[in-house]
Amino acid sequence: MTNDPARHALETFLNPRSVALVGATDRSGWSRSTFCNLQDWGFGGRVHLVNKKGGQVHGRIATASCVGVDAAIDVALLMVPAAVIPDALDDIAEAGIANAIILASGFSESGAQGQARQAALMAHAKARKIRLLGPNTLGFLNVRKRAPVWTSRLPAPLLPGHVGIISQSGAMGGYIGKLAHQQGVGLSYLVATGNECDVDVALVLDYLVSDPHTKVVAMFIETIRDTAAFLAAVERARDAGKPLVILKVGTSELAVKAAQAHTGALIGDDKVFDSVCRDRGLIRVPSLEDMVITAGMLASTGRIKNQRLGVISISGGAGEIVADRAALEEVEIVTFSAETCARLGEIRPEFSACHNPFDITGAAILEPELFAHTIPIVAADPGVGMLAVVLDVPTTTDDYNPIVVKALEHIGNALRATEVPALVVNMITKPVTPMTREIAAKAELPFIIGGLNQTLFAIGRAFWWSSWIERHERQAATDAAGPAAASVRPHSEREALAYLDSQGVSVIPSFLAESQDAAVRAAAQINCAVALKIASPDIAHKSDVGGVRLNVSGAAAVADGFRRIMADVGNAVPAARLDGVLVSPMRSGGIELFVGVTRDPQWGPVIAVGLGGIWVEALKDSSLRLLPITPEVALDMLKELRGAKLLQGYRGARPADLVALGRTIAGIANAALALGPELLAFEVNPLRVEGDCVEALDALAVWRDTAGQEH
Amino acid sequence: MTNDPARHALETFLNPRSVALVGATDRSGWSRSTFCNLQDWGFGGRVHLVNKKGGQVHGRIATASCVGVDAAIDVALLMVPAAVIPDALDDIAEAGIANAIILASGFSESGAQGQARQAALMAHAKARKIRLLGPNTLGFLNVRKRAPVWTSRLPAPLLPGHVGIISQSGAMGGYIGKLAHQQGVGLSYLVATGNECDVDVALVLDYLVSDPHTKVVAMFIETIRDTAAFLAAVERARDAGKPLVILKVGTSELAVKAAQAHTGALIGDDKVFDSVCRDRGLIRVPSLEDMVITAGMLASTGRIKNQRLGVISISGGAGEIVADRAALEEVEIVTFSAETCARLGEIRPEFSACHNPFDITGAAILEPELFAHTIPIVAADPGVGMLAVVLDVPTTTDDYNPIVVKALEHIGNALRATEVPALVVNMITKPVTPMTREIAAKAELPFIIGGLNQTLFAIGRAFWWSSWIERHERQAATDAAGPAAASVRPHSEREALAYLDSQGVSVIPSFLAESQDAAVRAAAQINCAVALKIASPDIAHKSDVGGVRLNVSGAAAVADGFRRIMADVGNAVPAARLDGVLVSPMRSGGIELFVGVTRDPQWGPVIAVGLGGIWVEALKDSSLRLLPITPEVALDMLKELRGAKLLQGYRGARPADLVALGRTIAGIANAALALGPELLAFEVNPLRVEGDCVEALDALAVWRDTAGQEH
Repeated sequence: MTNDPARHALETFLNPRSVALVGATDRSGWSRSTFCNLQDWGFGGRVHLVNKKGGQVHGRIATASCVGVDAAIDVALLMVPAAVIPDALDDIAEAGIANAIILASGFSESGAQGQARQAALMAHAKARKIRLLGPNTLGFLNVRKRAPVWTSRLPAPLLPGHVGIISQSGAMGGYIGKLAHQQGVGLSYLVATGNECDVDVALVLDYLVSDPHTKVVAMFIETIRDTAAFLAAVERARDAGKPLVILKVGTSELAVKAAQAHTGALIGDDKVFDSVCRDRGLIRVPSLEDMVITAGMLASTGRIKNQRLGVISISGGAGEIVADRAALEEVEIVTFSAETCARLGEIRPEFSACHNPFDITGAAILEPELFAHTIPIVAADPGVGMLAVVLDVPTTTDDYNPIVVKALEHIGNALRATEVPALVVNMITKPVTPMTREIAAKAELPFIIGGLNQTLFAIGRAFWWSSWIERHERQAATDAAGPAAASVRPHSEREALAYLDSQGVSVIPSFLAESQDAAVRAAAQINCAVALKIASPDIAHKSDVGGVRLNVSGAAAVADGFRRIMADVGNAVPAARLDGVLVSPMRSGGIELFVGVTRDPQWGPVIAVGLGGIWVEALKDSSLRLLPITPEVALDMLKELRGAKLLQGYRGARPADLVALGRTIAGIANAALALGPELLAFEVNPLRVEGDCVEALDALAVWRDTAGQEH
Repeated sequence: MTNDPARHALETFLNPRSVALVGATDRSGWSRSTFCNLQDWGFGGRVHLVNKKGGQVHGRIATASCVGVDAAIDVALLMVPAAVIPDALDDIAEAGIANAIILASGFSESGAQGQARQAALMAHAKARKIRLLGPNTLGFLNVRKRAPVWTSRLPAPLLPGHVGIISQSGAMGGYIGKLAHQQGVGLSYLVATGNECDVDVALVLDYLVSDPHTKVVAMFIETIRDTAAFLAAVERARDAGKPLVILKVGTSELAVKAAQAHTGALIGDDKVFDSVCRDRGLIRVPSLEDMVITAGMLASTGRIKNQRLGVISISGGAGEIVADRAALEEVEIVTFSAETCARLGEIRPEFSACHNPFDITGAAILEPELFAHTIPIVAADPGVGMLAVVLDVPTTTDDYNPIVVKALEHIGNALRATEVPALVVNMITKPVTPMTREIAAKAELPFIIGGLNQTLFAIGRAFWWSSWIERHERQAATDAAGPAAASVRPHSEREALAYLDSQGVSVIPSFLAESQDAAVRAAAQINCAVALKIASPDIAHKSDVGGVRLNVSGAAAVADGFRRIMADVGNAVPAARLDGVLVSPMRSGGIELFVGVTRDPQWGPVIAVGLGGIWVEALKDSSLRLLPITPEVALDMLKELRGAKLLQGYRGARPADLVALGRTIAGIANAALALGPELLAFEVNPLRVEGDCVEALDALAVWRDTAGQEH
């Protein structure tokens, strides 16, 4: 990835002035489709047909090799069988072509042999300094420059615009393009990255972020191969204020298997990816429709400064659907000010009821100037940050209605004069046809969107992203930084707690008693009931071997407890080194949490926070983040827990001091991170909180070289 | 509602041979629209124009009154202002017209005055024996008979078919009709019921259930006014095997307010309605799109006997989306049999990998006979109960592709020969245009559906309904019956527990001690720690007045506890009658549940079941049902709880005996129901379960005449 803004690594590749179709032949559907696409779209550059037999192809003279072409070629599209790709690459390199697309499949998606073929292909291309897109791709579309280097048939040029598309699946890329066209969403580029043996989603994303015409990037993803490069590109998008919309498969086990068979993608832990999206401001969407519509809307509205919605609806029923959906999508429907109500009431007395969503009633079809009168008033309400006007735009002669078109003209005029971003919302999901576009152009309508549920989803995501980036800007100064490396290597509970203590994390006081008398003395000093636990570097699960006794009171009981623990553990694990017994005050009440740091094979260190016991064990109620995290992020994590209400105080319990808790969790995260890459897992369980008292009661570290063995 | 199958109350109304447009005038958009609709659709009956001034209207001679029309009229559509409706009704009655539609608004949706106007309207119509649709409606469409008695413009006839639509909102009804047409879903009727001063959703539903052409009914609902009639119609639909699809607004507070302003609907407790849907097999949908597509699909496939899906997809990426979505919608994607894999492998070696969703790969576009070869094999797999073939059907010249059309012909041929219900699935949401319908007709394709998420939603709901009705048939014999009326009227804990005991519900043993000595004797008999609670018919919340002491051990402590309770309660509530102290064994461990019966103002007696404490209080985790319930339904309720896993045994606890628990909950429900309509609430809290020991620990009854007072 280059940081030279003048010339991106993919600049020539994705803006070719000339293309060679290698393996062009009348017999191939791919070849015919690509050639027709370039012709039908009116590609302004040169197209060279290359066929090793020469002769006439698609009605033109083909050359036998790229070397034989007497002109500079920016991109070669290889449609030849896998077996002759090496020869084709040599020819390309000798012709001085720097960029190639490989259509063929049968590589990393086809088991071990295919993987070996792909490795050889990569090595060959690298040696010949050729940048590869694919294999197993359909190519790319530069929509603005009408360059469809695309092997599947697309008879009509897609609408040009400001959404860039990246799809690892070629077929899905094609469908996304068609859907965008159907919904009136204009595209800048559409790139299918396939098996990504060289050019990957991170590199294309980096390019699109730097492209001035691309305002939003939407992605269909099976896997992120280079997570570091991807996160760096995501960061650049954030700094450029460009929203990223992502549909990533793999929430189900079945899809994980299917992706492996499809493009050889190894899909990671979906929960981790989901937390990456939440944390890094990626708008994750569940469907192709939501992807295209959300991206299209954001390309039109941009960032929304005041994330509160005003709605004017031609139908009360639609307003009710909007209200229900808004609640689900966490879209705030603002209450209009008294002044707004008074001004609406001047138009018609019944309008002073002034609900939002505002029901302009069917009368507005017969009196379209009602839109002209109400829109400025609602748009001027101090609470309204975005305005949605619900009225279907005609699509075909079947639903063409001149009265509606008249109303739309009033709407267009009124919206043009407002300062808040605005949308025209179709009641139902319907295409933006040439008729729709003509009506919209004449009335100068802003983005047309629909149906109601998809609209509210898109608005919800746009609001979320806008507030995310706002918050990011506020907090930019407090970004989490990785801690300095620690020089210790704690193993046992005692060492792990002592290490946390040294890192400023509150831990429960505890005394190592090497003898029965020392245990009794420690308990007397604590002066209330105590917990006794075996101290041994060799024992991870102390309860299982009789190494724990809780709620022990009085000298006799403590002495007895010490003897029994030493005896029981000695019998259960004769080889273990026993350092003695830890004596600590017995805690009761409060709320117990679980804090665990592990290493994700794709994303690196990840922290999980959950409420202890039943919550984490039976209900899997936990929140995840990549490390490092700030205390603020730790707070977010707590809010995501289903059982979060427990922390607010329940049945008279003191509410947890969330600020102190967030600080402690971030402290544990930093402490674990400081232990370096050899650490496999670090766990504090439980972390106890009662009011502002936050304390680690137990901790454990697992190291790469000792995992699974007792050394 | 009539039970005469020969002639339904709405038969003539909804199948008119002649219509009078009362208040017809060239100046009214409503009048012009209705007249044009009837003309454009080619209505076969007679249309009479009535205008009190006579003269020429819409190019025809108008009569001055209905009485002046020299022919029988089945339906009169009143487009006159509210003020002259009474006169118009008199004219209609004198002309012998039995059915009228009232377009005007300004009735129950417009505050107290409007409500009074509506009451007067109803009384008037009833006195003149006129059946009314509306007011505040747009009318109805008989699509099969091309009778659009509809006041909003619909230039093209909607597609005829087997889905009946009911909408309380006229505007939404119109949009639902357009959406159905756009998606290729044929309709039988579309009826907008408006304010429902006479004809309501229950009556229209009853009619559509009896209509042989209607296979599925879809409804847009704000409120159910006559819940008993509605439930009776729902039961008839179930017996007729007709699925019902319902979009009901009111999940948010904002929508509840909006509906009140829109059609004067008072929306009830959405959670209760949701439980009615689950229990009575109503398919509740979140959007207009899901409503139309789910109904359209069910009209095509009918009930699906084996609720497991086989998928053939042209794109691996689409297969992954399907897999993810199927998991969310609880659609089982079946694993193919070894024989299926072997047979697929004979077509192409790589097909033997045999994933479901099955990726036929882009090769099938170039070799469309691959569909002809694979479809019969997948359809014959013993696990597959329904087959979805994913391939976009062209919509416009922009995406027309002769190769795809060829593939669709192979698909149509192959599907025609299969025995399982089948669908052709568009990758993306797109309309079923005239071009699509022509291709589908030529290839004889089954229902075309899409995009992927909406398809999986529809399949999920169809599977759910199919299994619901299957289960209903199995359990029909064990339907819950209301219990015999009880003759007692329990109030206090003691009386309520004794009543439960008399009804066969296990309750904790307890002894009423009227003296300190009696309390000590009772505790000695129990022979372990006891709970002490004040016994008084006048005290509902015993803890608040010092009336409860738990975990009391030993004679001295029991004696002390007795004295203190009597003294504390006596001080706190001097007027209360104190019968003594209840002594019962102290229970610990186990799981505590909450069982409450209350009376919903719309639906009548409702039972709520939840896990006790934090679950019900802070997390609102409860399940609801209308009474009566069977033990099987009680089991369903338990399974719906988020904390249900707790009942399966947690951290070594014995799993709860769910059968015993279900029986006890149904027993409590019956006991509450037997107390009759004066009972406002009956609560068992906690109901304790530990293994197969299920026991009510506390209970309370609240009666209508004593609620809120201490008598």
